Amino acid sequence: KINGDRLWDSLMDMAKIGPGIAGGNNRQTLTDADAEGRAVFQKWCEDAGCTMGVDKMGNMFATRPGTDPEALPVYMGSHLDTQPTGGKYDGVLGVLGGLEALRTMQDLGVKTKHPIVLTNWTNEEGTRFAPAMLASGVFAGKHEMDWAYDRVDAEGKTFGDELKRIGWVGDEEVGARKMHAMFELHIEQGPILEAEGKDIGVVTHGQGLRWIECTVTGKESHTGSTPMPMRKNAGRGLALITELVHEIAMKHQPNSVGAIGHIDVYPNSRNIIPGRVVFTVDFRSHLQDVIDAMMAEFEEKAPKLCEEIGVSLEWKISGQFDPPAFDENCVNAVRDAAERLGYSHMDIVSGAGHDACWINDVAPTAMIMCPCVDGLSHNEAEDISKEWAAAGADVLLHAVLDTAEV
Amino acid sequence: KINGDRLWDSLMDMAKIGPGIAGGNNRQTLTDADAEGRAVFQKWCEDAGCTMGVDKMGNMFATRPGTDPEALPVYMGSHLDTQPTGGKYDGVLGVLGGLEALRTMQDLGVKTKHPIVLTNWTNEEGTRFAPAMLASGVFAGKHEMDWAYDRVDAEGKTFGDELKRIGWVGDEEVGARKMHAMFELHIEQGPILEAEGKDIGVVTHGQGLRWIECTVTGKESHTGSTPMPMRKNAGRGLALITELVHEIAMKHQPNSVGAIGHIDVYPNSRNIIPGRVVFTVDFRSHLQDVIDAMMAEFEEKAPKLCEEIGVSLEWKISGQFDPPAFDENCVNAVRDAAERLGYSHMDIVSGAGHDACWINDVAPTAMIMCPCVDGLSHNEAEDISKEWAAAGADVLLHAVLDTAEV
Ligand SMILES: NC(=O)NCCC(=O)O
Ligand SMILES: NC(=O)NCCC(=O)O
Repeated sequence: KINGDRLWDSLMDMAKIGPGIAGGNNRQTLTDADAEGRAVFQKWCEDAGCTMGVDKMGNMFATRPGTDPEALPVYMGSHLDTQPTGGKYDGVLGVLGGLEALRTMQDLGVKTKHPIVLTNWTNEEGTRFAPAMLASGVFAGKHEMDWAYDRVDAEGKTFGDELKRIGWVGDEEVGARKMHAMFELHIEQGPILEAEGKDIGVVTHGQGLRWIECTVTGKESHTGSTPMPMRKNAGRGLALITELVHEIAMKHQPNSVGAIGHIDVYPNSRNIIPGRVVFTVDFRSHLQDVIDAMMAEFEEKAPKLCEEIGVSLEWKISGQFDPPAFDENCVNAVRDAAERLGYSHMDIVSGAGHDACWINDVAPTAMIMCPCVDGLSHNEAEDISKEWAAAGADVLLHAVLDTAEV
Repeated sequence: KINGDRLWDSLMDMAKIGPGIAGGNNRQTLTDADAEGRAVFQKWCEDAGCTMGVDKMGNMFATRPGTDPEALPVYMGSHLDTQPTGGKYDGVLGVLGGLEALRTMQDLGVKTKHPIVLTNWTNEEGTRFAPAMLASGVFAGKHEMDWAYDRVDAEGKTFGDELKRIGWVGDEEVGARKMHAMFELHIEQGPILEAEGKDIGVVTHGQGLRWIECTVTGKESHTGSTPMPMRKNAGRGLALITELVHEIAMKHQPNSVGAIGHIDVYPNSRNIIPGRVVFTVDFRSHLQDVIDAMMAEFEEKAPKLCEEIGVSLEWKISGQFDPPAFDENCVNAVRDAAERLGYSHMDIVSGAGHDACWINDVAPTAMIMCPCVDGLSHNEAEDISKEWAAAGADVLLHAVLDTAEV
């Protein structure tokens, strides 16, 4: 069994880096706080007897050797970056839960046939640089590295320049590593496990996602002296599409979600009718045909709604993945570990995207979920109990040990 | 007659200060560009034989002496500050048209019984520091100066600190000056004069205004893993109120307008459901009962719409004035001047708020409007012809001379 207190202490220590304004964290990717968190994590891994490798996307790989020099490593990990107003556990639990597993192996002198590697994936959140899961996506061959380097944040800084600036461009080719298997522990970020009173979610599938970046163009003009019939109010385009997205998502309940999280209004002045509004629609489902149906309805209706009010809509996909089905053997390893350790568990679909969703395409992969209070995440008030964290790390340890062959 | 070429050259020279990104201007109030514009304007006024006074709100008063030491001055003027993406003429024409009138009087050695004072009012636009017409409002006793000093911009800087920083806190008490009359020349910022083929709008009334600052509060949470029934999406509150504002304004056509120009979304991340949206509703009419009806409908329906979708609404008035009716004698002076000079003219209502709307409460006031292309304003593409500008300045000169008694 892992040491729940030690895990909790590490979670609290990491949370001191890049604190938020309401008890959570703002440790966005490639900021100074991210660099500080990475350095601390590296030291912890080295203290646990691992050697650190870093690839050209800044992905960090801490290796604990195995006994068979030919055997491919078993991976575990998640991400240390957070939302601008994020919680202390989203991603972090999967990395530090993996660290706790390594520390436990070291304490007990466990030997495995396969090496074990703990990963911190760069820019999982995608808030500063869209899309989410950027570096695991490059690793899995979904994006070109040059394209990833060219992603810009709201201030016009590029991913590549910022990765260089914080000093975390490694020398490994991205995706060169081959994996025997990969396990990601993560908080659920939804309400199901808590409501069902389960310690562990055995993640069988994930939701697929489409991010649609929309630009509605009207004509900026004076709010006082422009007669109503002459207006081309881009803000109304946003309003109509906000409600359209909601309606579309409500049609496929409980198998779909949809919302707009990011909105920029130009020129954003109290007495100027918005001439342009840029925003991102987020549609998700674990069923591919639901995703396709939502996209088709959006494509058909959104431009018409805009046309009817005299504004125009341009859109492009700025992030996408199809619903992943995780590897049967890996999923079984998770379910067996939970069962053996005596934790209550249930099969579950992941509502959020995770690095594991991309890695699933290049290696046998599974995820372990633990509950979070009120299902709340992407909020500084995100919360979990020490017991939930410990149960998750325990299941991770045992699923990994089984797969790595003790 | 004024010198239309000289006026145009001055307009173009001023437009070089704080240029925009699309041919217009970004010379927002109390920025370095505003300070530069003020210094240039002061020099121009002194070259035209005037002395400059400045009050504690940074309002600038260039005085041309009269022959009767007892006579109260006749004022003219407008504002030199612009929107962030503003035009070259909104406000500026009224100031530099007044300067051209002074230059013409100097050229011709005209003597008037009443002194003539040209004013540049501080922060007319209200974009950086709400509300609009801030300094003329303090002058007219509508706001306390301390309250005005405490207005903050988006970066948290106060009006008072910024006025000090750019070096334009004068020593005059605000509102101490008494006026015989006041005339403001301004572009229409609407389409009527151009459509009717008139050179001059004789402004008899203005629209009243209500700015309603709204905060919709929901709960920020994950766009992927929060089930639809658990969402409290503040963005939907914005959407429903955007359409409500539009519907309310459409009910009183052609006597009302309404829109939302300024929107801030928190935390504004692609995969976080908005937990809070702050925005400002702008309602206007030249009829007081229409304003009252619009406010009553808003107050009744907006909170209900929010309640129905599980979010809450708080609102407060952040700017307001009632529809002004301008002074009959001053309005007649404008109409007579236009008639005498042979310019086509019509009576008109001002769609926008203007410093003259406040001053109208403390002195006999009127406004002169000239057309602008397509009625477009608060847009860098705002445009007027040299002839329109010259006609406006001509009528201003003659209305002022009549009132100041040559
Ligand atoms: N787990 C998580 O919050 N990932 C960010 C990507 C997403 O939006 O699902
Ligand atoms: N003229 C003008 O644009 N004034 C700003 C105040 C308003 O919004 O009407």
